[in-house]
Amino acid sequence: MDIPYDSSAPVRAGIPEHGRVPKYYAVKAKIVPLLDELGEGGTLPTERDLAVRFEVSRETVRQALRELVLEGRLRRAGRGTVVAGPKLAQPLSLASYTEGVRKQGRVPGRHLIGLERHPCPERLAGELAVERGTPVWHMERVLLADDERVGIESTYIAVERVPDLERDFDPDSSFYGYLSERVGIRFGDADERLETVLATPREALLVGTSPALPMLLIHRLSRDTEGRPLERVRSLYRGDRFSFTTHLGDGN
Amino acid sequence: MDIPYDSSAPVRAGIPEHGRVPKYYAVKAKIVPLLDELGEGGTLPTERDLAVRFEVSRETVRQALRELVLEGRLRRAGRGTVVAGPKLAQPLSLASYTEGVRKQGRVPGRHLIGLERHPCPERLAGELAVERGTPVWHMERVLLADDERVGIESTYIAVERVPDLERDFDPDSSFYGYLSERVGIRFGDADERLETVLATPREALLVGTSPALPMLLIHRLSRDTEGRPLERVRSLYRGDRFSFTTHLGDGN
Repeated sequence: MDIPYDSSAPVRAGIPEHGRVPKYYAVKAKIVPLLDELGEGGTLPTERDLAVRFEVSRETVRQALRELVLEGRLRRAGRGTVVAGPKLAQPLSLASYTEGVRKQGRVPGRHLIGLERHPCPERLAGELAVERGTPVWHMERVLLADDERVGIESTYIAVERVPDLERDFDPDSSFYGYLSERVGIRFGDADERLETVLATPREALLVGTSPALPMLLIHRLSRDTEGRPLERVRSLYRGDRFSFTTHLGDGN
Repeated sequence: MDIPYDSSAPVRAGIPEHGRVPKYYAVKAKIVPLLDELGEGGTLPTERDLAVRFEVSRETVRQALRELVLEGRLRRAGRGTVVAGPKLAQPLSLASYTEGVRKQGRVPGRHLIGLERHPCPERLAGELAVERGTPVWHMERVLLADDERVGIESTYIAVERVPDLERDFDPDSSFYGYLSERVGIRFGDADERLETVLATPREALLVGTSPALPMLLIHRLSRDTEGRPLERVRSLYRGDRFSFTTHLGDGN
């Protein structure tokens, strides 16, 4: 008999040694094999049918489905619930969002939410190595993959680095492409910090999810090839749609 | 006036442009500045006091506090709620958990949950490049930082690589230290994939959190210096206590 090894499913680790198994969790564990049978895009039976099949209340089924949706195993489609595809596996790299999504065979896109000019606040000034009050751009864009809204990117960069941003940058294109091709700035290196946070109501609205969905948030500070701080980016990705990959060698 | 730039607080992004601001969220946004005033370890006023102060129901306050606890801004301490310290910032690197935690001035620890020998299931066999059915160890440990339970590490490795594991490995010590010092195996490289998942009831019990807390899950496949697959690891970290850092250079 095989041990129940499955690197993606949380089920094998689901049964407490002490205490009871919550009823909704037992139902969730029974639904998971169903997902594999149905395959990506397959429609799940209705809540009512599942409640009858597993002899539990509809509320119990609903709680199980809610977790599976939060985890990206299921997604709502019209009035039904279907088996979701695997999470995108985006490489953690200096390359842009655009490039990463393209490598996975998806069509990247971006929608401008806002591009504003502000005096630089104190902490940001320290990070960007500019004087407090120096004009900075704040550009906010919704990230798309195959027309699906999957995240929000918020970029802060000193106006002096890209004075014509408002005039000659197409916000639906890659900012990194713009920097290297139009402005002649090349990336040298970046520090990133990745954490999980809950979507705020505004963010949930912008990416079309329910509020408090677990998101993956990446804080980035990048520098140009001279080591001079360039931009501060806050990239928020849907936790149910994204994972991040990295290759670790001797260097790190 | 400074723009409300804060890379950690979700508040600036909290107000929907369309639709209403949920009441609990408005309360949450008012509590956040209070946390900075109180400082790490400071005790928050009671739910009742906050409800009176903000003129909302206790249930609304409770929902705001629940999110702040999930996000690791607050933590329960005895009967009160106190301001939590910053999340640990663990480097994504070939180095071990032990090393990473030590660098942050914390005392790492590990508690063995189980060490078992199984015939290798099919998918794992492919990953470890062994025959299906080959004996593998499955070692599961709770990860500690300053005696606080912060995660669960689940390691799969072929018995032939470490035949004496059960006899001569101290499960409270670093497995990587054991591999290099006792067995003479050195790490060459590893592929990692990082995602957010919800804690299962069993996992929540083991790390002492509430079920469905967002966790950070790292899947690792590491190889020795000859490029031969070595171990498959599933490391689960409390999303409210951990963040991960990486430095991106020309190589990645």
